[in-house]
Order: sequence, then C-alpha cells, then structure tokens
Amino acid sequence: MKIALVGITGYAGMQLYQLLQNHPNVTQINIYQHDLSQKTPLWQVNNRLDHQHLAMALPYDSQQIMADNDVLFLATSAGIATQLAQPFLDQDFPVIDLSGDFRLKEPETYQKWYHKTGPTSQNLAHSYYGLADLNQNHQQHYIANPGCYATATLLGLAPLVQADLIYPDSIIVDAKSGLSGAGKSLSTSSHYLRANENMQVYKANQHQHIPEILAQLQAWNPTIPHLQFMTSLIPIDRGIMASIYTKVKPGIGQADIQQAYQKQYQAAPFINLLDEDLPDIKSVVGSNNCNIGLAFNEKTGYLLTVSVIDNMLKGAAGQAIQNMNQFFHLNDTSGLPLHPNTF
Amino acid sequence: MKIALVGITGYAGMQLYQLLQNHPNVTQINIYQHDLSQKTPLWQVNNRLDHQHLAMALPYDSQQIMADNDVLFLATSAGIATQLAQPFLDQDFPVIDLSGDFRLKEPETYQKWYHKTGPTSQNLAHSYYGLADLNQNHQQHYIANPGCYATATLLGLAPLVQADLIYPDSIIVDAKSGLSGAGKSLSTSSHYLRANENMQVYKANQHQHIPEILAQLQAWNPTIPHLQFMTSLIPIDRGIMASIYTKVKPGIGQADIQQAYQKQYQAAPFINLLDEDLPDIKSVVGSNNCNIGLAFNEKTGYLLTVSVIDNMLKGAAGQAIQNMNQFFHLNDTSGLPLHPNTF
Amino acid sequence: MKIALVGITGYAGMQLYQLLQNHPNVTQINIYQHDLSQKTPLWQVNNRLDHQHLAMALPYDSQQIMADNDVLFLATSAGIATQLAQPFLDQDFPVIDLSGDFRLKEPETYQKWYHKTGPTSQNLAHSYYGLADLNQNHQQHYIANPGCYATATLLGLAPLVQADLIYPDSIIVDAKSGLSGAGKSLSTSSHYLRANENMQVYKANQHQHIPEILAQLQAWNPTIPHLQFMTSLIPIDRGIMASIYTKVKPGIGQADIQQAYQKQYQAAPFINLLDEDLPDIKSVVGSNNCNIGLAFNEKTGYLLTVSVIDNMLKGAAGQAIQNMNQFFHLNDTSGLPLHPNTF
Amino acid sequence: MKIALVGITGYAGMQLYQLLQNHPNVTQINIYQHDLSQKTPLWQVNNRLDHQHLAMALPYDSQQIMADNDVLFLATSAGIATQLAQPFLDQDFPVIDLSGDFRLKEPETYQKWYHKTGPTSQNLAHSYYGLADLNQNHQQHYIANPGCYATATLLGLAPLVQADLIYPDSIIVDAKSGLSGAGKSLSTSSHYLRANENMQVYKANQHQHIPEILAQLQAWNPTIPHLQFMTSLIPIDRGIMASIYTKVKPGIGQADIQQAYQKQYQAAPFINLLDEDLPDIKSVVGSNNCNIGLAFNEKTGYLLTVSVIDNMLKGAAGQAIQNMNQFFHLNDTSGLPLHPNTF
Repeated sequence: MKIALVGITGYAGMQLYQLLQNHPNVTQINIYQHDLSQKTPLWQVNNRLDHQHLAMALPYDSQQIMADNDVLFLATSAGIATQLAQPFLDQDFPVIDLSGDFRLKEPETYQKWYHKTGPTSQNLAHSYYGLADLNQNHQQHYIANPGCYATATLLGLAPLVQADLIYPDSIIVDAKSGLSGAGKSLSTSSHYLRANENMQVYKANQHQHIPEILAQLQAWNPTIPHLQFMTSLIPIDRGIMASIYTKVKPGIGQADIQQAYQKQYQAAPFINLLDEDLPDIKSVVGSNNCNIGLAFNEKTGYLLTVSVIDNMLKGAAGQAIQNMNQFFHLNDTSGLPLHPNTF
Repeated sequence: MKIALVGITGYAGMQLYQLLQNHPNVTQINIYQHDLSQKTPLWQVNNRLDHQHLAMALPYDSQQIMADNDVLFLATSAGIATQLAQPFLDQDFPVIDLSGDFRLKEPETYQKWYHKTGPTSQNLAHSYYGLADLNQNHQQHYIANPGCYATATLLGLAPLVQADLIYPDSIIVDAKSGLSGAGKSLSTSSHYLRANENMQVYKANQHQHIPEILAQLQAWNPTIPHLQFMTSLIPIDRGIMASIYTKVKPGIGQADIQQAYQKQYQAAPFINLLDEDLPDIKSVVGSNNCNIGLAFNEKTGYLLTVSVIDNMLKGAAGQAIQNMNQFFHLNDTSGLPLHPNTF
Repeated sequence: MKIALVGITGYAGMQLYQLLQNHPNVTQINIYQHDLSQKTPLWQVNNRLDHQHLAMALPYDSQQIMADNDVLFLATSAGIATQLAQPFLDQDFPVIDLSGDFRLKEPETYQKWYHKTGPTSQNLAHSYYGLADLNQNHQQHYIANPGCYATATLLGLAPLVQADLIYPDSIIVDAKSGLSGAGKSLSTSSHYLRANENMQVYKANQHQHIPEILAQLQAWNPTIPHLQFMTSLIPIDRGIMASIYTKVKPGIGQADIQQAYQKQYQAAPFINLLDEDLPDIKSVVGSNNCNIGLAFNEKTGYLLTVSVIDNMLKGAAGQAIQNMNQFFHLNDTSGLPLHPNTF
Repeated sequence: MKIALVGITGYAGMQLYQLLQNHPNVTQINIYQHDLSQKTPLWQVNNRLDHQHLAMALPYDSQQIMADNDVLFLATSAGIATQLAQPFLDQDFPVIDLSGDFRLKEPETYQKWYHKTGPTSQNLAHSYYGLADLNQNHQQHYIANPGCYATATLLGLAPLVQADLIYPDSIIVDAKSGLSGAGKSLSTSSHYLRANENMQVYKANQHQHIPEILAQLQAWNPTIPHLQFMTSLIPIDRGIMASIYTKVKPGIGQADIQQAYQKQYQAAPFINLLDEDLPDIKSVVGSNNCNIGLAFNEKTGYLLTVSVIDNMLKGAAGQAIQNMNQFFHLNDTSGLPLHPNTF
C-alpha cells in the first residue's frame, strides 16, 4: 500500500509516520505539505525526523495524491480537513481524518464547539465515525477518527450504556490527559514550569469532545440525556485516564456488570479487561490497547470504570491505522503494538 | 515556645521541623526518637537534615518531654500515637497528632479501616478533630490533625453540605495526590519507573480517610448517607486536587452556590475562592492555602468543586501548626506561608 | 526596612517577593511596574500572586522609589537595569540588581556576550560583584547579584583557584540547570513535550555567564587562561548542579584539597561541605545553601567538585537578600532558609 | 527464527520481548524462568505483560533451550550468566548475553569491579564484545552485549581515539542516565520522592562500566592511560547522555574532527552525526540510534562530544538484536526502530 500523509509537523502526524514505517503492508509513505512549492527534505519540514536526510516532503496536490496513493491520512488542525475534503469525497477516495472536522453530524454543533465553520451537512453525511474497537467498517470512504478523550470514554461506557445497566442521567467523567493531547503550539499551560509538578483542569464543561461522545452514547441508548465531562492535564507526555462514575440501576450487581464488559470485548484484540485491579496509564503507553478496570461500590451504588489509553496511539494514530486495516480488510492488529513499551 | 517533635524521619516530621524553624514564636525545637538510648546527632537520624551537624536528637521520654516543652507534635506512623498518648492525656499536655490514630470516634471503625487496634473509646473521647479553617479550638488538648485528602475534601464540601444545597447521596470525590502522600517507605508504586509518566488509582473504595470525611460530613448534615471517594497518585512530589462532583438541588443556582462559599470563607485567611478559573495544584504548593474553584453545569445539574492543597502543609504540617497557633491564641497565620513558592 | 521591587512578573521577582514577606526586618514591600499609569491590583499584574486581592502594584517612578524605600531590587530582563540605573547611581541609593547588566567591567564584553549595549564604563566602575558567601560588602551601593551558574561554579572553584592547587588551564565545568533558569517566556525548549523526559545542551561555549566567571577566577588567580563551560537543561523546576573537573597539581593530595575547602568555608553559614558523598540537587532546593562534595581520582589525577544550589535562591533571590543583609549590617542568614523544603 | 529468552522480569528482558514480537524474522519467542517447575502463564511471572493471558513461561532447561531455539538471550543480573553459560559454550550455541559477566577479559578485573566471581579465563576467551555499530560479527557464538554507558561513550570516542586526534590522558566523561538504568529493584535512590526533581551522582569513579570502556579504548589506541568517568541519574525513564570532554592535539582543527567522525560512521545506519546542534536525549528515545554532536572550543582547545542513546535500546535490547541480526546475516536494521517515538 502507498500512503499519503498530510500534517507531519504535528504530534499525531509524527506518530503516524513512525507507525506506518513498521507496517507490514505499507510499501511507501508520501508526505505532503501545504506551504511547499517543490520537493523539500523532510528534515527541513520537521527537524525531529530523518537525521540521515533521505526523505522528501512534497507539495500538496489533491489529484496527485489520489493518483499516487491508496489512502490519505489527514493529521491537520481543526478546520483544515473541511477545506481539503471535497475532491476526495467527490471521487470516493479513502480518507482517514484525525481531526475533529467530520466527527459531528450537524454543522451548527461544530460551529458551537469549535468556534469556526465546519463541513456542510451533505459532506458530513458521507463521513463515518471510526470507533474501531466497536465497529468494523469496510465500506465508507471518509473516516472521521474519534477524539482521544472520546475513545477512552466511549470504550469505557459502551457495555453499560448498550446493556442499559445505569441511570442514564448519572454519567460523570473525570478525564486526565498527558500534555501531548494539548498539542505542539506554545502556551502558558504547556510551559514546563506551569505544567510540571502540577495538575490543571481546563475547558470546564467546554471540551469539544463532549458532543462527539454524547452523540455516540445517544446512538446506543437514546435515553441518555446529557454528560458531565471534565478534562485536565497531568504532567506526563502521553496517556489518558478516563475515570467514569455511573449509578447502577437497582438489581444490577457486580456479576452483571462484569458479564456485560466480557461479552462486549471478548473478541476485541486491543481491549484488556482487568480482573481485579484498576489499570494505570503506563500499562498501555506505547500500545494501541485500551485497558479497563471496574470498582463497584455496593454501599453507594456507584460504579467506577477506569479506562486508559495512549492518546497518541489508540487516541489518534493507532486507531487511525486500525481504521485503515479494517477498510482494506487487513488484520486488525497489523502494524500496531499490542504491548506497552513501558515497565 | 518550646516544641517537642517525634517522627523526624518521615516526610511530615521533616516538613514540621522546617516550618517550625521559621516560626516567630518558637524558641526551641526538641527532637525525640524512639530507638535512641542517648543524644545522637540529628544528621545521623535523618541525613537529609542539618549538614552542619549542630542539632541533636534525644531519647524518647514522655515525662522529660512534658517537663521541657509546651507542646508535642506526633508525626508518627499509624498505631504509634495509640501507644504513646496515655501519659499526655493523663496530664492534659497539649498534643498535636498528625497520624490517623485519634481522628475516628469508634475503635471498631479504626480497626476496620486501619487493620489494627487503635485507642480506646475513652481516649478517643478526649481528642479534637482539628479542621483548623472551619473551627477555632482553644481548649481541647489532644488534637487529631486531619488527613490530607480529608482536609481538601471537607473544605471543598463544607458550604454545600452545611447549607444543604445538594442531594445528600450524590457526592463523588475523585482525588489525586502527589507521591509524598504515599510516604517514604519503598514500594513498587513509588518506584520512579512505576510512578513517573503514570497515574495510578489505589485503595479503590478502601482509603482510610473515607470514615473520617463521612463522620465530619454527617456531623454537619445527618442526611448524608455515604460517600463515593477515590484516590490516585499523579507524578508530582506535593499537592492534592480533590475533584468533587455533587448534584445541586432544584432551584439552587450559580449565585446561591457562590454566596454559600463566600459566606463560609470570607474571614478564612488561608482559603482562596477563585472567581472564574479552577485552581491548579501549583497555585498552592509551598503555602498553607486551600484554593477552591467552582464549575456549575446548568445542563446536567452537576457542580464540580475543585479544591487544591499542598498535602504536606495544609494537609499535614501546616495545618498542625495552625492548630498550635489556635490553641495557644497566636495569630492563625504565624509562621505559615500565605504564598506558594512556585511560579 | 521598606523594600522596592521591580520585576514581579518574572520568576526571580516572584521568589524575592515570597522571601521578603517572611524577612524579619522587612516592614513593607512596594512593587513597581513599568507599564502602569496608576495603582493596580497586584493580582492583575501577576495572577499567580495574591489570591485575596489586597496588594497593589505602583507605577514606576525613580524619585518616588527613593523617597519611599530603603533599597531597590531590580529583577528585570537583560538591558533594563542599564536604562533604569542612573538616578540611583547619582544619589548613591542602594540597588541590588539581579540581572547581568552590571556584572562585567567592560562594556565591550557585555556587548559581545549579551548582544546588546550595556552600561558605560563609568557606571560599571560603581558596581560591586556580590558573591555574598565569599565577600562581605558594607559599602558599595550598586550591587550586581551574580548569575546562577556563576555562583555555583565560583563557590565550587574558589578554594582550588585561590590556593593554586590545580593546573590553571584544566578547568572544565559541565553544568545542569532546571527549567526555571530558562525563564518564563515561551520557547520550544521550554515546551513541556520538549523539556520533559529529556536533557538539552544549550548555548555551547556561548553562555553569558562565562565572562563573569572567568573575570572572578582571574581576579583570584591571574594564571587562569580560560574556562571550558557547558550548560544544559534537565527536567526539573529548580536547581543547578555544576560538575567541575580540574587536574590537580603534582604533590597535592586528597587531604590538601579537603583542607583548602574547609579553611575557605568554615565560617560560611550557607556552605555545606559533604564528608563522603556527592550532593544531589534536592539537598539544597528550597534553601539558600550551596552544598559541595569532592571526588578525587588518584589514578587519573582529576578532581570532581560537585556544587549544587537552588538557582532561584542562592542563584538569584536568596543571594540578593543575603547581599541586602550584608549591606545593612543584618545577620547574614536573616529571612533566608537554611534547610531544604524537600525530602 | 526461534528465540529463547531468560530474564523477562527485568527491564531489559521486557524490552527485548517487546522488540522481538515485531521482528520480521522471528517466528517464536520462548520464555524461560529459573524458579518455575512447570509451564506458567507469563502474566503471573510479570504482570506488566500479556493482559490477555495467552503466553506461557517455561521452566529453565539448557538442553531443551538448545533443542527448541536458534539463539538464547540472557537478560539476567550480574553473576547469573556465569552460572548458566557452560552448556551453551560447550556446544557453540549462539548466546547474546546482556549482562556484564562476559565483557571483561580478566577474571580479576571482574572480581574487582563487580565484587563477585565471574567466568573463568578460558570461558572469557570465547566471548565476543559486541559493539555492533563498529564491528560486524558473523562467527563468534557467545556475544557479550556492551553496557549502556559503555556504548554511548565508545561510539562518541571511537573516531577521536582511533585517529589519534586527542591527548590520550585528557578524556573526561560526564554521563547522565535515566532511572531505568538503575533497574527494577527498590532503593532509596530510585524512590520517586528522591529521584524526581533531582539529579544524583553515584558510584563516583567506581562504575563497573569503566574497565569495559578502558579495555576497548586501549584496544583501539594503546596510549590511552586511564579514563575519568562519572555517572549520574536524571529524572527521566529512558536515555543516556554522555558528555565527553577531550583536549585536541595541536594542529587538529574543527574540519579534521568532523572528517574523522564522518569517515567512521558514513555507513552506520544507526549513527546520526548532527551538523550544527548538540543532540538532546529525546531525539533518540524509542529508537536504536546513537546521535552525536560536536562543539569544539578553539579558545580552550577542548572538544565536547555529546553522544545520546536510549539505554534500553541501543544500550541494551536494541543492540542485542542488532548483534543477533549480524550473527545470522540478517539486515542490521531488521526489527529495530530507526526513528524516535518522541516529539
């Protein structure tokens, strides 16, 4: 397979590039860059990559991309995919879009949460929400890769919501992310002296992954009315922990809950249900896994579901490749790490 | 004032020693150590302290302690204060106990949560729960200094619970602590390779601060039935963030909530209510402050209260000195830092 | 004493403010800020400070500063003190300047290393290099507070250079600093994702503290021809370790070296000579101390001197207050922490 | 290829396992464990691995290992390989030993630096020092994989020493390592509160990699008399930076030095020479690379060579696989990452 990649300067694009180089079915990776008028050494585009100065970045050209590749990955900032998508949609060319542009179904919701204009309803209708561990997509060509927080949260909630085990208005998610989730641009909150030895809550009730999560939850279970969802930065490079509190319905016990999770994920190669412990973040960093643990408190009736992922892998580049694997009928796990590279 | 200190080898004892040296009313600090049979250089007892080799640690002797000092600080492990307390209780000698031994009122609760035998009911009846920012104690001689998690949680919940603004069964606390909260002893979870770049949930529904918090909440408002409370380690040295979710009662709005907090804390020198933002941990590290921020979600009806403290100061040694200040009618803030030493 | 402070928005100014608030001889701290036209709440100038909104920042006015204060601290960026100094020099008003502007004696050296125009020779002639642990200044009114790297390095080298124990051309300093040394402004090297889990060498052979160190070394021992000096960032907030390698002259042994250090520092309250170990950075963080350890390798003839300081205290605000204490004949240690606040 | 692995509980063994799973020529990995009497789920041997509970660990049996595998990796603590090696040496079975046991050529040197008895001279004579980027081994069956510090240092020094560009008695190495280099066992120096926000020098002039480095340097250039070598821990998980200071011989200039490095490493796939910058640690973490930068100071005559590696990859498991690749005539880079997984 020949791969086109746009967005190599950001963290998700770099991670994609690193993973694709080890993918057994990938024979070529072509990097395209907007602001180039001619072939340019990759090193000059991103000086973290290619110390041996062999690879080139190419000027962006949608027709050339389709002529020379089998699939396009967009690892671009909010709003860019909106501008780039049309020619690919027109020709049903496979696109895996890591940005948030095509995840929501109504333009006005995008406008509200992203504070800019997104794709048209018509274009949104052609996109597929690629939550790869719960669905197998072999047909839809424009795949909106889910957000990192959304992935951790939805994988943690799916069995409860689908099996209707919890009070629908009782979902509270307290989510924590490493700084790579906040991106590469310079800001006070990502300055080392501010971020290190600290924990910072941000975008209280305003995070743009909220509508994406709620839409999927309601698709599974229309009785879900809303979602209490908070995000925070902890001083690590990678990783997300979603601590999900729900109130279990009367008559539902520990065994019912565990059974629902086991049934849902018994065939999922990247989802690990922990028997007794709650997972720590480092148990997944470097892998495409999502580890899930449960703590049911019979006294209070609350269930804590802890769902951890590597935000750059399962929460971005890893799931994007998983979506590629599914679309092209490859093995789900091809080119994707099943073990953490931590200790 | 002359101060006796037992427990200089642990983190809380070290922090106490550091603070007391700058306290304007303290003229002498006498360090006592169980396993000594004679005066020993402090340096040999704790090689992090006293590089100039001037201070001495003394053998433990309760009568000598009372003869030579005005107050005793116990910064000892669980179970030790139980063994040491009797002579001081017998003579109404002021003791500030940083351990959990005298915080609960029923011996069987202590046994259940600490997995060892604690003080008798009779002795427990003489102890005072020194939540210093909410009460002023000038009389009771045996002061149980609150736990770090308990302090952050109770200061965050007090206005809501006392003013009856929330559904009593809706309290969920997702608390995060730096590693100093886990103490000095070696363990897998505090090994650098396990703790760094990680977040670890621990003691799910089992943390020994739960009964201490619940007892105080119920003293304020007997309708509180239980408490959903989780603790986790984040990779920082110091600091606690308690993220407290509660469901606000119908008819209660943002203004009511803010008013309750302002009324409660208007005269509290160490409590800072943030107008708009939610506090980060570093805004209090190095100070004896508790910073509190609120995010009310009208859509879901949930209120998030974020309460942050330095677990070694407000959560241990700082509050202990505040308790000393109150007992001896000193200024509440004497010798205690009002500004963080961070940036 | 009444203190004027300019530069509260930077790290050194914040640290100064925090220390001065606990100084027993300080009765008032007046904060001045260039860009203000009227009194402004301090909170609005620096939102890390003063959560209770009581303190004010004042417009900058040199005559008002001299009328209302006993001493001025300048915690300003390179080049600012050059512009502000004249009225204070004209009236012999005490100034403690934490910037590098007045540390060098020749304007052309300043120009070369700071890449901007500094003070005139005439003004430079009135400044005093305040290396407070080695000199006692009671007379000179304009005090140039030494650089952080310079302080750690010079305190480590003084006994060797003054007693002529080493080959003068053999000095190699491999210095490491926490990120606070790199300041508050946003940059790629201080972005969390770049700085965390990393070590970065910077300004190779170009650091502006080199001429300041060399000038002092040559003042002590004119045979010193040059200095090999490298700086790097390690992922910590505070602290410097200067690893100083020197080749010991023939006939000089371990005992001679230790004796030289002991003689130099026997009366220095902030300098701790370690008997056997080499100091770690955390042994001084939070204190105004400089801890020094020695490892002489008889096989190679090289001596390693490890000198550690808290760059914000001994390397900036702490030494500045020490300079104030000396100038005003206060106790050297007044208001300055003698113990680390670490564990 | 079928791989036998002993030592899956330690960090190097875990890293080996993770890498070998993605190696294109590896069809099977058999894990052997000393203290087992029967097949045991891998999960129970190391609970960081294999959340899906599929893999098994086997009892240790040297004859079975040779019957069922093509090569044996030993990722064992000091002293274990000494005990295990004999049957494999007897039958010329390929062994790649990540421990220090077979790196030195004289038993008495091992005894002196490791404080225990190592292999006999006879056995040592059959081992090969596998510094894979400088030598290509296709014949020798017992390969002693170099130490992490030794690898970074020797790759940084090789061009200078082989081309005789420096004063032979002028080598000073100031090396820094992440905590994974200190291993998995619990100790005060690896406790999070001690290691975090700190830098610790350790084993001053006593590190066991010193004789290994010196022996190789002297093999290249017998005029090298000794080595000044210091090791320290910085608060990161992975990575080594060796800062190597040498005094360049008269008449040797910047161009000569660069030429020597380019000539040495022009065909080395894992060695990146940086044109202008000095490398940071994160530029290699996650890869099997060694990045090298140079800063020649014409004023002092000292050259700084900065050599960085990932201690778990190039410094342990990565180089071990590179040694396997060479021995079995595979591509040098097979199964080994050429790009960092950082940003």
